[in-house]
Amino acid sequence: MHDLSQKTVRVAVDAMGGDYAPREIVKGTIQAVRDIGSKGLEVILVGLEDAIRREITQYDTTDLPVYVLNAGEVIGDGESPVAALRQRPDASILTAMRLLKEGKVDAVVSMGSTGMVMVSAIQVLGTLAGIKRPSTGVILHGLAPNTVIFDLGTNVDCKPRDLLNFATIGSIIAQRILKIDKPTVAILSNGTEEGKGNKLVKETYSLLKGSKFNFIGNVEGNGIPEGDANVIICDGFTGNVLVKFCEGLGDVLIERLRVQLEGKLSQEEVDSVCDNLFALTHIADIVGGGMIYGLDGLVWIGHGRSKAAQLAESIRQVKLAVEAKVFQEIKSEFEKLQLKDNTEI
Amino acid sequence: MHDLSQKTVRVAVDAMGGDYAPREIVKGTIQAVRDIGSKGLEVILVGLEDAIRREITQYDTTDLPVYVLNAGEVIGDGESPVAALRQRPDASILTAMRLLKEGKVDAVVSMGSTGMVMVSAIQVLGTLAGIKRPSTGVILHGLAPNTVIFDLGTNVDCKPRDLLNFATIGSIIAQRILKIDKPTVAILSNGTEEGKGNKLVKETYSLLKGSKFNFIGNVEGNGIPEGDANVIICDGFTGNVLVKFCEGLGDVLIERLRVQLEGKLSQEEVDSVCDNLFALTHIADIVGGGMIYGLDGLVWIGHGRSKAAQLAESIRQVKLAVEAKVFQEIKSEFEKLQLKDNTEI
Repeated sequence: MHDLSQKTVRVAVDAMGGDYAPREIVKGTIQAVRDIGSKGLEVILVGLEDAIRREITQYDTTDLPVYVLNAGEVIGDGESPVAALRQRPDASILTAMRLLKEGKVDAVVSMGSTGMVMVSAIQVLGTLAGIKRPSTGVILHGLAPNTVIFDLGTNVDCKPRDLLNFATIGSIIAQRILKIDKPTVAILSNGTEEGKGNKLVKETYSLLKGSKFNFIGNVEGNGIPEGDANVIICDGFTGNVLVKFCEGLGDVLIERLRVQLEGKLSQEEVDSVCDNLFALTHIADIVGGGMIYGLDGLVWIGHGRSKAAQLAESIRQVKLAVEAKVFQEIKSEFEKLQLKDNTEI
Repeated sequence: MHDLSQKTVRVAVDAMGGDYAPREIVKGTIQAVRDIGSKGLEVILVGLEDAIRREITQYDTTDLPVYVLNAGEVIGDGESPVAALRQRPDASILTAMRLLKEGKVDAVVSMGSTGMVMVSAIQVLGTLAGIKRPSTGVILHGLAPNTVIFDLGTNVDCKPRDLLNFATIGSIIAQRILKIDKPTVAILSNGTEEGKGNKLVKETYSLLKGSKFNFIGNVEGNGIPEGDANVIICDGFTGNVLVKFCEGLGDVLIERLRVQLEGKLSQEEVDSVCDNLFALTHIADIVGGGMIYGLDGLVWIGHGRSKAAQLAESIRQVKLAVEAKVFQEIKSEFEKLQLKDNTEI
């Protein structure tokens, strides 16, 4: 029975994107809908109908709100996004984006390649007013659950304006998802004092000082795991290197720890310790990916290697974001900013 | 008995620099000299003679090659380096640098503030031909023992030329200290493919391609703990953020792990696991600091919070570097490069 007090959230899932598509995508979708379908979730699996239905028949889907929309063209691994998408207008990812554009769904989830998802999203949805490139951020679930970090790689060379945009988006996420009233905002830097930082940090600092943000200055690298601010902003180059460093460090630490604990604890206990360490260091893995912000629509991009569990978690995260009206808030904020910028000029 | 086959290494230690000076500095010096003094090490403690001698009397230093050189002026915490050093020409750090400049010692070790050590080193020693600012790097002892990473914070805004200098210095360290014949060099980036990276990375990539370095392209963040290259170069902003992130992450992981292991292992075993994790994540802490490269002399700068053990380890590292003739090799390499650059113009 659906909870009628809440509007149903409709998600289009790209059934053909990811290393384990469509099998794990279908499996994860059914898992998510089974768990939370009764709380107002519908999923449309987009892709080769035959292939999807073959997978669906493995499960009892009676009364489950899972639908299939045929998209007859498939993009192979390693194809150039721009060319591939031009040649195949009926590719699953483009079809899913069009559903979102037309308002038939609230969000798109894909485990396809970053380039492919990004290009199709920009082509079909476009970016919000005042945003040149979409950005990616992540809540540090587990490690520092009240902290979100932006950008993680889509904006490699940034201007102060980009970092301000991250602060805007990050603050809305902290408010709407983390339920923090006045989220603190900090710039990642090589020193906490004003005047520390590279050129980008220093310029951004002077813009944030005295702004409407709850700006608390710079945080150093250790401020991230320690959750020194609710919103930590940095250029996408630094963010990307950090997140991947964290993952690699986690892998090495798990390996060493396993050797040290083996024989001292039961296998089950060793596994549990290592799983925890994995969860704390593979931030984006645990939730299966992350939202792309700054698009004119809500899009979630997952890791290609995601399996059913990550897909299901992605759908859960997307449902939360839709219900919290994160996207509408971001859109309206950028429209206001745009208006302000124009009147100021 | 001194080993006469090896030249004695002479190190000037700034006895007044650091949070625990002079007590822990004197203690660590005596520890180091006791351990390796017979293998050709002499240390000159530079600072307020009375204060140093008061500490020395706590130990039996009969026949130990530890000497004291009085430097009568002390610089307080939080003073501006340039002004403080101008007003106090007899400060311990300046006196130590002059010993190095005059060839009376082979290296200087200080746990004083980075700014103070850096400014006094630049004033007294100067930088090598072709180098604008000194740089700092670290061997990833424990984590990836065959990898050295440059720069860790002194060069915040870099040009491709700076990264090339880091590659030069890093390669010499890998050859001379790590004994790697043809060390691999990689640029830290947000993707391994050529064309990935920020503006700095892309420009540096094209300079390194086809150079005399054993250049293997870009490595991502996870390539650092995984030791994907012997020399990993990045701008000092990124390097600084990474090293501090690693430390902070280590602290958080240790805290969580301790809770999970308590009661399952003996206290001693829990401590041992946590100590290992600390050592793997506090790279610069374990060796007490790091070398400053690019100066016309060998200078080691340690953490202000260093105690005797870190001071002793710093002296050990410095002795290794002196014996491996790292500094001479770097100096001669930059002189050659300078010559080449000038003839090319």
